[in-house]
Amino acid sequence: MAPERVDIFVPAHVTGLFSVHRRDDPRATGSRGAGMTLSDGIHVAVEPADASVVHFEGTTIAVEAVDRVLDQFELEAAVSVRSDVPLGAGFGASGAMALGTAIGCNALSDRRRTANELATLAHVADVEAGTGLGDVVAQMRGGIPIRREPGAPGYGRLDGIAETARIEYLPLGELSTKSVLAGDLDRLNAAGASALERLLEAPTLETFVSESRRFARGSELLADEVADVVDEVVAGGGQASMAMLGKTVFAVGTGLSDAGYEPEVCEIDHGGARRGTDVRVFYPPDRQSQL
Amino acid sequence: MAPERVDIFVPAHVTGLFSVHRRDDPRATGSRGAGMTLSDGIHVAVEPADASVVHFEGTTIAVEAVDRVLDQFELEAAVSVRSDVPLGAGFGASGAMALGTAIGCNALSDRRRTANELATLAHVADVEAGTGLGDVVAQMRGGIPIRREPGAPGYGRLDGIAETARIEYLPLGELSTKSVLAGDLDRLNAAGASALERLLEAPTLETFVSESRRFARGSELLADEVADVVDEVVAGGGQASMAMLGKTVFAVGTGLSDAGYEPEVCEIDHGGARRGTDVRVFYPPDRQSQL
Repeated sequence: MAPERVDIFVPAHVTGLFSVHRRDDPRATGSRGAGMTLSDGIHVAVEPADASVVHFEGTTIAVEAVDRVLDQFELEAAVSVRSDVPLGAGFGASGAMALGTAIGCNALSDRRRTANELATLAHVADVEAGTGLGDVVAQMRGGIPIRREPGAPGYGRLDGIAETARIEYLPLGELSTKSVLAGDLDRLNAAGASALERLLEAPTLETFVSESRRFARGSELLADEVADVVDEVVAGGGQASMAMLGKTVFAVGTGLSDAGYEPEVCEIDHGGARRGTDVRVFYPPDRQSQL
Repeated sequence: MAPERVDIFVPAHVTGLFSVHRRDDPRATGSRGAGMTLSDGIHVAVEPADASVVHFEGTTIAVEAVDRVLDQFELEAAVSVRSDVPLGAGFGASGAMALGTAIGCNALSDRRRTANELATLAHVADVEAGTGLGDVVAQMRGGIPIRREPGAPGYGRLDGIAETARIEYLPLGELSTKSVLAGDLDRLNAAGASALERLLEAPTLETFVSESRRFARGSELLADEVADVVDEVVAGGGQASMAMLGKTVFAVGTGLSDAGYEPEVCEIDHGGARRGTDVRVFYPPDRQSQL
């Protein structure tokens, strides 16, 4: 019997270093690189509805990656989203919403798709919307994912770093993934490839953050206001870099608070995208009239 | 700086259906099949020591899979294990101990191995010890893993069911994995292959349990005392089957308690093997004198 409503938690994913790999097949398109999934993330609730709609904390919003996922199911659904992290700031929110919607719609409809098939569907939606290249596969895995080969399950190849840590982050503003990916990628790809190579030689969280910083400078993606904060954390003996792609500083341990900031605090997530029953979702006031 | 002690949690893994696939290369050897990882599991603490030793809740024990892992590191280590689940009863404890030891030793030594490399090392140790064929890769993933192709990362192929549930289990006794795997596997392999095929057509938790039950009967592995309890749960409208390989009944939701039993209760785990800092490990009284 299909449930009346499905709640899904998808961890935020902060990429530290990456390179872009485009193929004709969107399933084979993606990024190589490394990141961290966080215990802060995106909470998605999916319910059957008369007409499909996406709500974000009380407001109706349009998210192309979510619409593309909804199109794959023979189901009209109301998708309600609450986020622990800001949108557009390098946390992979679009991929998370797409993945949560895919898991929810599958549970409410024919339930014929495996976890990999749902991740593929959401990955393709995020790639085609131009909003992400590797967040979905990382968010499905959890932990500290290394994307050794780009693409959806069966195309890409995931690995990881078997560690855990307290993570601090400080959002300073948005950055458009779409416009960065539309620019010249030669320098970015060269910096991403060598950073990944060095990370695989010593796959630790420290290497991840220091190579992320080297990548942020080498790719020329490091925003000035982010660089200032990162420099302060490093000067204080901490480890920090920039979330790709957003004006967000992330640090391991107490790097940001040691430097005098008041960051958000969370941990490495280990579960990846998952269904739950304890997820609070804010329902917009105009919701009842629409259903 | 290497930590003084590393704590790792590895979820128990209950296989419901499987087939055996042996190759010359132990990395490519494994099982196809499906199972569930549990929030009950195995807690491993690893510390540097003068001579390697394995303690289980106060007693020194010999676990071949763990010894094989220790041999791969240039490190003498004291491995202390506490388990939420009984040993030898179908919970993949040997694989869990091997995997926890691998993650701990890596963190204490040169930290040159990725998560996949650590899983490969523990998988090979479990295969060569004859104590497991698919637990390690499932325990590294977490959730409800489907082993579509057998073997370690890069050889096998993992998928999963994107659901969650309360799980009940009732251990009734041990069963030797080694002796079952040494027997005639034709019937078992045929039953396992067709059960997996049907599961992939409708990859839900209900299908997993009903196909597990069909596999348990078809493979003739279903022990009489387990069959009696499973029949009672099913007669009461519940879903249950037998943990492979142990005389343990598992049920989804409240199947066993509805039938009047007092089972252990846990949930689907979603994190897979992971380092933690909040893990209590029992230290044996003779420990201090050995260090």
